[in-house]
Amino acid sequence: MRYLITFSYDGSGFNGYQKQDGLRTVQEEMEKALEFINGGEKTVITSSGRTDKGVHALCQKAHVDINVNITPYKLMRALNSNLPDDIHVIKTEVVSESFHARYMVKEKEYQYYLNMGEYNPLKRNYEWQYGKKLDIKKMQDAIKYFEGEHSFKSFTPNKDHRNNYIRTITATNINVLDNTIVFTFRGNGFLKYQIRNMVGYLIKVGEGKKKGSDIPNILLGNDRRLASITAHPEGLYLKDVQY
Amino acid sequence: MRYLITFSYDGSGFNGYQKQDGLRTVQEEMEKALEFINGGEKTVITSSGRTDKGVHALCQKAHVDINVNITPYKLMRALNSNLPDDIHVIKTEVVSESFHARYMVKEKEYQYYLNMGEYNPLKRNYEWQYGKKLDIKKMQDAIKYFEGEHSFKSFTPNKDHRNNYIRTITATNINVLDNTIVFTFRGNGFLKYQIRNMVGYLIKVGEGKKKGSDIPNILLGNDRRLASITAHPEGLYLKDVQY
Repeated sequence: MRYLITFSYDGSGFNGYQKQDGLRTVQEEMEKALEFINGGEKTVITSSGRTDKGVHALCQKAHVDINVNITPYKLMRALNSNLPDDIHVIKTEVVSESFHARYMVKEKEYQYYLNMGEYNPLKRNYEWQYGKKLDIKKMQDAIKYFEGEHSFKSFTPNKDHRNNYIRTITATNINVLDNTIVFTFRGNGFLKYQIRNMVGYLIKVGEGKKKGSDIPNILLGNDRRLASITAHPEGLYLKDVQY
Repeated sequence: MRYLITFSYDGSGFNGYQKQDGLRTVQEEMEKALEFINGGEKTVITSSGRTDKGVHALCQKAHVDINVNITPYKLMRALNSNLPDDIHVIKTEVVSESFHARYMVKEKEYQYYLNMGEYNPLKRNYEWQYGKKLDIKKMQDAIKYFEGEHSFKSFTPNKDHRNNYIRTITATNINVLDNTIVFTFRGNGFLKYQIRNMVGYLIKVGEGKKKGSDIPNILLGNDRRLASITAHPEGLYLKDVQY
């Protein structure tokens, strides 16, 4: 039976989502718990996509095939008793054998948290402690240039070779709560470091060092060197995955 | 010269504020950094009071005597470069030699965060993941019984012997944001575990298992066994200290 699992995790204790020998990863912890439930059989989980080291997920989704007979509710309960306390399963449901958690993604939402105020030790792993005032209006104008269908090659590492750098951003938003800026991006998919590189550029716009109106040309240039810094991972959250 | 230091810390990585042999504590980290600045001389810091293991401070205050000639601003900078990333100095100021950070406290504010909703792995060290819906109205009515001058012996461990259990609570409040309850208490001082024991009782009121109107008799009874559970430490924050 194929199950779709919705789960959250605190990225601060992991070397990213994807399995790597000898390092603690979300995938490995999930597969360990699943293997135990699946009668000791090696069990591979397929997520909607990986998240980098230090990046959090409030709503990650993944599919898995389980051979033992178990209801979705019992699977959720069994996972939560076998998982460490920095991963939590929110929901489990039966899906068809043809469902695929990565290939069938329609839309994803990410949020990025940045603190412009005093360094906060309690939030050091949960928002970038940037500590400088930024011009919000300029950033709110600039973020709109990312909306629509574009090649985002200038916002992903040059060495990350792919056939296709075209992605569609369907919605963006910038909100401010006290000194914390919350950037929101929705789209049909995102390249490696794309959000952190877009946020990095927007920060420089907020500092008056870059211009929002240059974004269309940077997108057309297809070269990472045209853009700017990469925002730190701890401010980034995978917020939603839609099929 | 005597300095008053205002600082914040993430309690999750410490065995409480107070120094203990072989354990990582806030006081020890502060004194290590101060000793380095104070020409290698053993330096004792005196805080407004201790916080328990796992409890956080957004605004703790402490005084210290420094023999080397240093401006408050440079002291703050030097401390922040020598402290670990889970403690942060917000402010430093020169005070008179007769100032005392514990004896001269006029008022303290604490807040307690409780999550009634789905377990959140990202907040597991920052709010109690209680996971049950509580009756807010009943709790809002009940918390008012704690206001005023009372003996709080029933809300501190029986084995914690003191001469005086009388404290004054000047203000209380209960706010709800989504599924998170925020309890606020202001007062001239609090006994060991007092806030966590008051919150524990209020939770039972919110579950319909205890009555707010019994609080006056419990206070008069002067016996810990009359009250209820102790709320977990990770939800508690020292929010303000006034002199």
